[in-house]
Amino acid sequence: MDVDAVKQFLTGLQQTIVASLSGIDGRAFRRDEWSRREGGGGITQVLEDGVAFERAGVNFSHVSGPNLPPSASAGRPELAGRSFQALGVSLVLHPRNPYVPTAHMNVRFLVAEQDGAAAVWWFGGGMDLTPYYGFEDDARHFHAACRDALAPFGAGYYPRFKLWCDEYFHLRHRGEPRGIGGIFFDDLNEPDFNRAFALTCSVGEHFLPAYEPIVQRRRNEPYGERERDFQAYRRGRYVEFNLVYDRGTLFGLQSGGRTEAILMSLPPRVEWRYDWKPEPGSPEAKLYTEFLIARDWAD
Amino acid sequence: MDVDAVKQFLTGLQQTIVASLSGIDGRAFRRDEWSRREGGGGITQVLEDGVAFERAGVNFSHVSGPNLPPSASAGRPELAGRSFQALGVSLVLHPRNPYVPTAHMNVRFLVAEQDGAAAVWWFGGGMDLTPYYGFEDDARHFHAACRDALAPFGAGYYPRFKLWCDEYFHLRHRGEPRGIGGIFFDDLNEPDFNRAFALTCSVGEHFLPAYEPIVQRRRNEPYGERERDFQAYRRGRYVEFNLVYDRGTLFGLQSGGRTEAILMSLPPRVEWRYDWKPEPGSPEAKLYTEFLIARDWAD
Repeated sequence: MDVDAVKQFLTGLQQTIVASLSGIDGRAFRRDEWSRREGGGGITQVLEDGVAFERAGVNFSHVSGPNLPPSASAGRPELAGRSFQALGVSLVLHPRNPYVPTAHMNVRFLVAEQDGAAAVWWFGGGMDLTPYYGFEDDARHFHAACRDALAPFGAGYYPRFKLWCDEYFHLRHRGEPRGIGGIFFDDLNEPDFNRAFALTCSVGEHFLPAYEPIVQRRRNEPYGERERDFQAYRRGRYVEFNLVYDRGTLFGLQSGGRTEAILMSLPPRVEWRYDWKPEPGSPEAKLYTEFLIARDWAD
Repeated sequence: MDVDAVKQFLTGLQQTIVASLSGIDGRAFRRDEWSRREGGGGITQVLEDGVAFERAGVNFSHVSGPNLPPSASAGRPELAGRSFQALGVSLVLHPRNPYVPTAHMNVRFLVAEQDGAAAVWWFGGGMDLTPYYGFEDDARHFHAACRDALAPFGAGYYPRFKLWCDEYFHLRHRGEPRGIGGIFFDDLNEPDFNRAFALTCSVGEHFLPAYEPIVQRRRNEPYGERERDFQAYRRGRYVEFNLVYDRGTLFGLQSGGRTEAILMSLPPRVEWRYDWKPEPGSPEAKLYTEFLIARDWAD
């Protein structure tokens, strides 16, 4: 395994994505380089109150520490107590127009080390889409890009990582998926470093082709207060998922990560309402009945 | 111990508080009675978009189940696997005027049972205040009421429960207290049922005298967009605490509680901003430098 190669890929990926998003929006990202006392650091790039994006955060981080946090060792108790390095790019994009879905993408590499033992490493990542108003074309396009990202590595990956995504981005307390899914994977160390790395690169590189056409297609759709209200309400689910369940968020907070960079995933403006339900048959209800259900989008 | 007496007290307390808050606001609460498949139920009373309260929720619940949830047995591993009953009143009030603080109060009673073993019971609860703009008078008044609630039971309770509150309502990832505290207690089963119950009743009954005068004093303070923005921003901390750390919220979600009733504690309208800091010397900065610090307010 080659930590430097992973780092070089990740910093390059961050730059490519930031440049593209900045081109879409017309505004520049703010760039913060930071380091942490416990080891490592990162580059946070953020755009707030943009034209297309109300909040867009693209983080690179490379952190290390003497003890693998519990959120990372939960599935691998034999690694508890090992020192670790974690490298990743993580992004969450909250568009202004409620017809443009929120998007999330993450690629990461972990190494757990211990004197006198072989280093254990694995990749993880994925991307998923959270629409406010669903469009079949968009869902099909996004999932097709996810499938294309994985296809060169074997036909089995997409169905497996699609299901994993559906299972992971699930709000148990709501009995609701977070959005229409995408792909999610973790603990990937097969068949060897080079191929697992190549698969992870492919996921990262397919994000822009998966998402950019959807933004361009929907960004000029007219909307009013009703659509903004529904967007603000649904963003509440995003907050609930990220703070209650998301392993990446918990890993960041537990490992003494930079709070402002980690919580950049939270939406800029959110509303909660008691026991609110959409009018049956309304465009808002359609999100629940036709999109927030288990569906195969890439056929 | 006497579960019926506790239940009678709690339903009466909910009624008294709802009637008072409704009188302050001028609008009526919506009332939902609910039951859950796993056992028990509750009464949710909620006011949204009121005059004084943008969101006010006062819950009563009496739930039971075959397995004490992990959030309740964490400090008492010997009780894991026992059946339980949990009764409580829990309220969170989010005022509209940013000069009126958000308030939280909870009183609860838990019983863990097992065939062939004596039932184990305990009380818990507390109240605390989360201002957006701090006022020394308000902080002193609130803490004095907390002290008065506990004084009849021994001079040691207030300092102990005040410290417990400071420790509990702490956002580790921000290095910040949630607000100016108050009192918090858990696992109270001393010196006997009658006296632990009486102490808990006193805490519940002191909520209105602690909070109502503050609402009346500040509710007509003029404010503008700046104050509303700061309130929306600071409410983000409330969400972070409740979803990441709060044991009551986790207990509710883990025990299959009614999600809409549990998450009524979340503010109606919230904003997150990247790396935002108040202007040094501003009224907003004063909240951090003079109120969100460890202070003795009841001297």
